[in-house]
Amino acid sequence: MNVTANHRTRHYRTVTFDARRNEVLLIDQRLLPHQFKIAARTGYRATAKAIRDMVVRGAGAIGATAAYGLAQAALSFRGRDLSKFARHIEAACHVLQTARPTAIDPVNALKGVRLAMQSGQTVEEQQALALAAAEQFAHDDVRHCEEIGRHGVKLIRQNTRVLTHCNAGWLAMVDIGTATAPLYAAQKAGRKFHVYCDETRPRSQGATLTAWELAQQKISHHIIADNAAGHLMQRGEIDLVIVGSDRTLGRTGEVANKIGTYTKAVLARRHGIPFYVAIPLSTIDWNLRSGRDIPIEERGESEVLGAWGMNPKTRQFLYVRIANPTSPARNPGFDVTPPELITGLITPHGIFKPADLWKNRHRLGSEV
Amino acid sequence: MNVTANHRTRHYRTVTFDARRNEVLLIDQRLLPHQFKIAARTGYRATAKAIRDMVVRGAGAIGATAAYGLAQAALSFRGRDLSKFARHIEAACHVLQTARPTAIDPVNALKGVRLAMQSGQTVEEQQALALAAAEQFAHDDVRHCEEIGRHGVKLIRQNTRVLTHCNAGWLAMVDIGTATAPLYAAQKAGRKFHVYCDETRPRSQGATLTAWELAQQKISHHIIADNAAGHLMQRGEIDLVIVGSDRTLGRTGEVANKIGTYTKAVLARRHGIPFYVAIPLSTIDWNLRSGRDIPIEERGESEVLGAWGMNPKTRQFLYVRIANPTSPARNPGFDVTPPELITGLITPHGIFKPADLWKNRHRLGSEV
Repeated sequence: MNVTANHRTRHYRTVTFDARRNEVLLIDQRLLPHQFKIAARTGYRATAKAIRDMVVRGAGAIGATAAYGLAQAALSFRGRDLSKFARHIEAACHVLQTARPTAIDPVNALKGVRLAMQSGQTVEEQQALALAAAEQFAHDDVRHCEEIGRHGVKLIRQNTRVLTHCNAGWLAMVDIGTATAPLYAAQKAGRKFHVYCDETRPRSQGATLTAWELAQQKISHHIIADNAAGHLMQRGEIDLVIVGSDRTLGRTGEVANKIGTYTKAVLARRHGIPFYVAIPLSTIDWNLRSGRDIPIEERGESEVLGAWGMNPKTRQFLYVRIANPTSPARNPGFDVTPPELITGLITPHGIFKPADLWKNRHRLGSEV
Repeated sequence: MNVTANHRTRHYRTVTFDARRNEVLLIDQRLLPHQFKIAARTGYRATAKAIRDMVVRGAGAIGATAAYGLAQAALSFRGRDLSKFARHIEAACHVLQTARPTAIDPVNALKGVRLAMQSGQTVEEQQALALAAAEQFAHDDVRHCEEIGRHGVKLIRQNTRVLTHCNAGWLAMVDIGTATAPLYAAQKAGRKFHVYCDETRPRSQGATLTAWELAQQKISHHIIADNAAGHLMQRGEIDLVIVGSDRTLGRTGEVANKIGTYTKAVLARRHGIPFYVAIPLSTIDWNLRSGRDIPIEERGESEVLGAWGMNPKTRQFLYVRIANPTSPARNPGFDVTPPELITGLITPHGIFKPADLWKNRHRLGSEV
């Protein structure tokens, strides 16, 4: 999307690859909105670490980062020995895939790149194919988001008040975003609407990333505490919920997404408010048979016990401890929303009921 | 409760009054858990400001502070003119009552003090009666919490996992607390149990105050993000919810409490988890006919846009801006939970269904 930084407006993607330098380039999302900085990662291990440390986060963005990370691993290989090369690729896949266990995009991205590499007869051919496949993943991600916008735009009417959770914006993808794609499309269509951004503790991606995106695009919005959405729904101030997904089960329609998503789905159901999940195809897991089998990442307790922010006086960016220092915390990063709470899944091929994913699986790119 | 500060253990109440100096003494709750400090307020306007600025917060604690504030106003009056004195008391009531509009305890506390003053024939007599009535309010608050503990203790069985929201502990009252009273009673009875403390953004009273209280009393607990409770319920890790109340409608059983309480009640209902509200009699409003008539305080946006915490390196206590600096926030401080989501109200006179409050109103101290 277009970003205005230092009075200059330029088009940026969240994740790009510099093949000449063999570097993955990432908008450092830990620093936003306080600083806009592009971080370069040399070597696939550093790229995996950037996923784990959340320099880059968001379903499609970490998918593309993993894909580029594998291309980076391939391109860094010296020699012609195909079996050594295969072992090198195997190791890189493992490191890149385990960086964030709940998301399926990295799994699908890595699978896609490896599949494409198979037709290469030499290390050099396979390297070229890995790079092309990673670029294709990023390209598809952008195209899918455009299509999600095209299908989802009809949900945003004049004066619709939308709630969103965490960041499923362009920063979560290569560009455009999933939950935000219908918003950006509605804005292009000249519609006026308002967005409530859940702060999304503990990492505050709603208050930092989504709010920053919407402010950049001049979309009317308020940040709210995660606690406030129920009250606003009760008072009739929210018409629609749109969120993203980190893993959607093709067999059941269950959606794993940022912790707190499930709560919003339960509230929306109580108030008869439509609850939509926007997903590119790479976010669908066609294998798992139950949401209980989705690995839920438990992150470190420091995220819950404090927060990162800027001292307004010194403009220093720092971590402060909020909580009682002798208390422990639990920090599950994701939760699973059951299909009966989901009004529809906005996909690049149209809006589906969660129960209809499986019968449309071939159209939706499943090989199962 | 007993507090260990600087290696010394002493018994403290949240709010006390030094009649000789005519000062209201408050544990400064904005500084906890980082500093334990008693703040003295001279003059009822300073006392009202301490309520508004949340030096003191919590239903019973601000009730007692308002009562002492009125006694303080009475005692500071010089002269014998009863009608001048009445105007002075009227003005003080207005200032003390409007400091936090959602809570009913200050309203009831001020009403009680004024009623008691009526039997005084002189300014001096009325001053003495005001002081006695304020002390009586504080005394009743403690006694009510003890009784809440006695009735609520049966809800806490061996290994019960309790969720609580915000702080309805002894810091929210004069002593002991409401939602925590059953916990402290269960601990005395030798039962083992575990507490999940909702962080409770935007002011984090769960992470700072409740967690500090429980750590002081050596009760097993974890802090969680407000977003995490739904996930824990879904996984069968919460058996019981107990919260406090800032205003409970005697006619309908509706409960106004810290923003996010309603969300927890909706989640508890979905999962068949009992949801209890612990209330002293001073928290009941026998007049209002609908929760829609409860004034919901909208607080400043800086609470949502950032957080107070301690820089672990410098041990400096400071505010950091978390959110995007060009985004606005909304900050409703309370929400209203309807009676059908409340399993029971734990009162000093036993546990009642919300619908049964009204028919038991005379036993529960209503004059209506």
